[in-house]
Amino acid sequence: MKVGVIGATGYTGHELLRLLRGHPEAEVVFLGSSGSAGRDLREIYPGLPGEWPELTAAEPPPVDILFCALPSGAAAERAARFLAAGGKVIDLSADFRLRDPADYEVWYKWRHPAPEFLPEAVYGLPEFYRADIAGARLVANPGCYPTAALLALRPLLLAGLLEPASIIIDAASGVSGAGRALSPDYLFTEINENFKPYGVTSHRHTPEIEQELSAAAGQKLRVSFTPHLLPVTRGILATIYARPRPGVSEADLRQCWEQAYEGEHFVVLLPAGVWPQTKFAFASNFVFLQLKLDERTGRVVAAAAIDNLVRGAAGQAVQNMNVMCGRPEEKGLEQLGLWP
Amino acid sequence: MKVGVIGATGYTGHELLRLLRGHPEAEVVFLGSSGSAGRDLREIYPGLPGEWPELTAAEPPPVDILFCALPSGAAAERAARFLAAGGKVIDLSADFRLRDPADYEVWYKWRHPAPEFLPEAVYGLPEFYRADIAGARLVANPGCYPTAALLALRPLLLAGLLEPASIIIDAASGVSGAGRALSPDYLFTEINENFKPYGVTSHRHTPEIEQELSAAAGQKLRVSFTPHLLPVTRGILATIYARPRPGVSEADLRQCWEQAYEGEHFVVLLPAGVWPQTKFAFASNFVFLQLKLDERTGRVVAAAAIDNLVRGAAGQAVQNMNVMCGRPEEKGLEQLGLWP
Amino acid sequence: MKVGVIGATGYTGHELLRLLRGHPEAEVVFLGSSGSAGRDLREIYPGLPGEWPELTAAEPPPVDILFCALPSGAAAERAARFLAAGGKVIDLSADFRLRDPADYEVWYKWRHPAPEFLPEAVYGLPEFYRADIAGARLVANPGCYPTAALLALRPLLLAGLLEPASIIIDAASGVSGAGRALSPDYLFTEINENFKPYGVTSHRHTPEIEQELSAAAGQKLRVSFTPHLLPVTRGILATIYARPRPGVSEADLRQCWEQAYEGEHFVVLLPAGVWPQTKFAFASNFVFLQLKLDERTGRVVAAAAIDNLVRGAAGQAVQNMNVMCGRPEEKGLEQLGLWP
Amino acid sequence: MKVGVIGATGYTGHELLRLLRGHPEAEVVFLGSSGSAGRDLREIYPGLPGEWPELTAAEPPPVDILFCALPSGAAAERAARFLAAGGKVIDLSADFRLRDPADYEVWYKWRHPAPEFLPEAVYGLPEFYRADIAGARLVANPGCYPTAALLALRPLLLAGLLEPASIIIDAASGVSGAGRALSPDYLFTEINENFKPYGVTSHRHTPEIEQELSAAAGQKLRVSFTPHLLPVTRGILATIYARPRPGVSEADLRQCWEQAYEGEHFVVLLPAGVWPQTKFAFASNFVFLQLKLDERTGRVVAAAAIDNLVRGAAGQAVQNMNVMCGRPEEKGLEQLGLWP
Repeated sequence: MKVGVIGATGYTGHELLRLLRGHPEAEVVFLGSSGSAGRDLREIYPGLPGEWPELTAAEPPPVDILFCALPSGAAAERAARFLAAGGKVIDLSADFRLRDPADYEVWYKWRHPAPEFLPEAVYGLPEFYRADIAGARLVANPGCYPTAALLALRPLLLAGLLEPASIIIDAASGVSGAGRALSPDYLFTEINENFKPYGVTSHRHTPEIEQELSAAAGQKLRVSFTPHLLPVTRGILATIYARPRPGVSEADLRQCWEQAYEGEHFVVLLPAGVWPQTKFAFASNFVFLQLKLDERTGRVVAAAAIDNLVRGAAGQAVQNMNVMCGRPEEKGLEQLGLWP
Repeated sequence: MKVGVIGATGYTGHELLRLLRGHPEAEVVFLGSSGSAGRDLREIYPGLPGEWPELTAAEPPPVDILFCALPSGAAAERAARFLAAGGKVIDLSADFRLRDPADYEVWYKWRHPAPEFLPEAVYGLPEFYRADIAGARLVANPGCYPTAALLALRPLLLAGLLEPASIIIDAASGVSGAGRALSPDYLFTEINENFKPYGVTSHRHTPEIEQELSAAAGQKLRVSFTPHLLPVTRGILATIYARPRPGVSEADLRQCWEQAYEGEHFVVLLPAGVWPQTKFAFASNFVFLQLKLDERTGRVVAAAAIDNLVRGAAGQAVQNMNVMCGRPEEKGLEQLGLWP
Repeated sequence: MKVGVIGATGYTGHELLRLLRGHPEAEVVFLGSSGSAGRDLREIYPGLPGEWPELTAAEPPPVDILFCALPSGAAAERAARFLAAGGKVIDLSADFRLRDPADYEVWYKWRHPAPEFLPEAVYGLPEFYRADIAGARLVANPGCYPTAALLALRPLLLAGLLEPASIIIDAASGVSGAGRALSPDYLFTEINENFKPYGVTSHRHTPEIEQELSAAAGQKLRVSFTPHLLPVTRGILATIYARPRPGVSEADLRQCWEQAYEGEHFVVLLPAGVWPQTKFAFASNFVFLQLKLDERTGRVVAAAAIDNLVRGAAGQAVQNMNVMCGRPEEKGLEQLGLWP
Repeated sequence: MKVGVIGATGYTGHELLRLLRGHPEAEVVFLGSSGSAGRDLREIYPGLPGEWPELTAAEPPPVDILFCALPSGAAAERAARFLAAGGKVIDLSADFRLRDPADYEVWYKWRHPAPEFLPEAVYGLPEFYRADIAGARLVANPGCYPTAALLALRPLLLAGLLEPASIIIDAASGVSGAGRALSPDYLFTEINENFKPYGVTSHRHTPEIEQELSAAAGQKLRVSFTPHLLPVTRGILATIYARPRPGVSEADLRQCWEQAYEGEHFVVLLPAGVWPQTKFAFASNFVFLQLKLDERTGRVVAAAAIDNLVRGAAGQAVQNMNVMCGRPEEKGLEQLGLWP
């Protein structure tokens, strides 16, 4: 597979290059960057060994897959142009994830420049939409928080086991999720030995989570979603609270997960009592899940852990590439997480 | 004030010594330690400058206040002995926090050896129980998570603004909360770049929170409480979800906090939109609070940040000492948090 | 003492404010800031409780001491103006540390705008120049690396115990030493889980160290100095290699330190075999020292640990203020370091 | 290749399993562990997905390569037994690295139980001893610090460019180098926000470095070696000081490295002015090198960065396995380092 990467100099771009270089059947032939056109990638990342295509602001050549790793808002037009020219795109921004263009105005505060592509975009969560992804020419790679939240919640809502209005998602992410943005908020000195909520009640991943969970529940639902910033580079943990429908037992919930994820290479249902840790997933494409029904309060507590740059971005994109190109889904993604 | 510290070699003991040495009117005259009797404190903590009393397993001499910084379960008998001899005790363990001895059997899995002291123990949260603390001879210094959760929630429940059954407390703590215990779980290699829930539905601080909130609400209530372990040394953040009673507005909630904490030196109500960060409280006795009513979901989200070793343990103990001994409450605790 | 702080919004400024607020005899009456004039300090640092003077770009009023915490190059003119008006200044930049104006051109790449003040500036290392500081109206507060290196080396060179040409200083600093500068180099993501040398053979603290050591040795000497960036917020460790003069024993070296630092409150000579850790000094004004003569190689290895923001900047400035104003030197600086 | 791992539950064992599982031509058929015999590996490391052989205290079956990841002192007898039975061993402890059995008594404080195997053990640094490794049945995998130091220094000494008596190695390592040992020294609380030297003048890697550098220099030499403990999980940086022989220029030194490492896949000579960072090597088998001749002091400063668990242990072991089994040396080790 010949592939190109636009937005190659960001953290997501770098992670794509790391994974693609380790993929036995992928070859990176194009590196797009508007800000660093003409430079050698190793000037920007001197720790990257080996040879790489020169960074360029030019349009990509025909490739099997174009990965678009531009910031949300900057991706739509660029991806649309390549699609119009007949290419296949995996877009890692939010620009094709929401079906309703109005949601972009409400949550992202901009007007979508290519809404005509929204209907055909496939939401790239392979465990749920594998067949559609296989036939898609435009895949919207899910957000990092939604990936964790949906892998935990979607099967349970689809099976009607939870009260749709009861869902609270309290999540925490490593700082790489913010990209390489320069702000005092992301300086080592202000993140180290610190922990804080942000985007309380207003984070942009909220409508994405609600869209997918509403579809699963068969009714419009709203969730409370509070992200926090962790003093780690990588990792997302979502801790989830919900009320089961009357009569639903912990065994029912577990069985639902087991059926939904039977044979899924990347989903690890931990033994009862063992809770996910972000480090379990560090640098790997695996997701780790656990839940418990608290008889005292009647609430179920669930948790999901992923690496936000792998399963929450570049790894899931490579997984989607494998599906779109008819390769085994785990190809190039076999690496286990690092420990310690 | 002449004071003694039992359990001087643990982290809480060390923090007490740090604060007491900086207190202009306190003098540490006794250091109790069963495991390190006869040793010089600086063998254990070579970074501690200055002179210190020798560590001893002997009974403390008469002092104005005896701080008991032993682990939960080990404190009760020791403290009871000193009380019986006529002394005043601030106990930093959980051994005198719960009013119902049966709760120790359920949550702590041991039988209380001195239940006769439970009725007179005062729960040492000065903003709530100042007058009782002033007259107490036994103060049960609150747990770290309960301190954060109660400072956020108690006034709101006391004022009847929240649905008692709706409370979810999702909290995260630095590793110093676990003390100096030797377990692979607390090795740098397994905490660094990691984040995980623990004690899900079973953490021992749950009955303590419920006891105090039930008293405030005037009815028995249960909370969902999920602690997490942060890769930081110090700091607790509690993120709290609840449903306001019908008709309660965000302004009502804010006003309740403002009235409850008017003139309180250590409580900082942040301006709207500025959320607490654990680092705001780093190495200080302050607590930082914020809340928001989410009109979309009808839930209020609140957050509280403290330093678990200061406000969550040794600092609050010194604050209690000041109250018990008629000193200004902030004496020796004026230090601002470190930044960065 | 009424004091003012220019450059109040940087990390050093913040640390000065933290220490001065805790000082029982100092009152901060002026906060200068060109970039944030007119703002409330708590907009910039919302974790700072209490009331503060408004930030202003105006000239400071008469005060007992003006602390100048501007970047090197920006301080000289500002400080000179205040001096010319009859005030006393403690300058925390490098602008008055070097006696030879030509050194600024070589190492700092700019021409000194007020060289006429260089002869009277006193190098503010109280253990060495206490008497001069007491009578000074302009004190050049030492650099962070030089403070650590000089406290270890100066007595040994003054006593003629080391070969002047043999000195190698391998040092590491926390990131707060870089201030609040916005660069990808200081993002959490690129510092966390990383360690690197920088400024190899060219760091600006080199001439400062050489100036003071040359004066001690009575001859012009040059040192190899390699700073590294640590993934910590605070702390400097200098590991030093040198050849003792023929016949010098480890006991001679230790005795030299003991005599030089007898009665010095802030200098801790650790017991043999216990090596300094940056955390010993965390948030305190103490310096921790150790050395060993390696009979196999004939080299002495020494180490010094400080907190770069306290003893390496704001704490030493307050220590100088105490000396200049006739107060006990440790006033307001009694706090022990944090552990853990 | 069928391989076994003894000492599978330590960090080095885990890292071997991670790399071997990602190796397309290796199959792990045996997991030895005396302390955890009979257990499932995933009880110990619940983040490890997939199936693994049961842990056993039994003797390994015949395999192509047996990796011995036991602590130094525990490996010799075990490895010797397998060798005696006709197997091939890569030993990751220090037990076969030193040629002179007396060195074990001096530096390790124990008597070597199988000195008869020392003469045939090949020091497993492939860039230097590739041919010998290819024919060996016992490879002594180098220590982590020696790997970094030797890759920087050996070619320069072999070429006679440095004064043999002038070498100082100041190095820092992540905490994983200490293994999973339970000691307060390795608790998160005591490592986080800390940095310290240890084993000053007495670290066990000293004789290993001296043995290899003496061989290169053609004369017995001694080095000053000071290790430090970094608050990171992985990574070693060695900063090295030496005096070049008279007349040697920086260009000579660079040219020496270029010739020594021409065509070497895993050695990255960074462009002038770009210094190694441990993070460049994070989770990869690459080593990054840089040097500079300081005309002011006449000393050369060099630096080398590796991942201590990959290039400093398990990765180099897999590299050796590839050489011993006639596979391309980079097989299974192609992964680039993580960034960020």
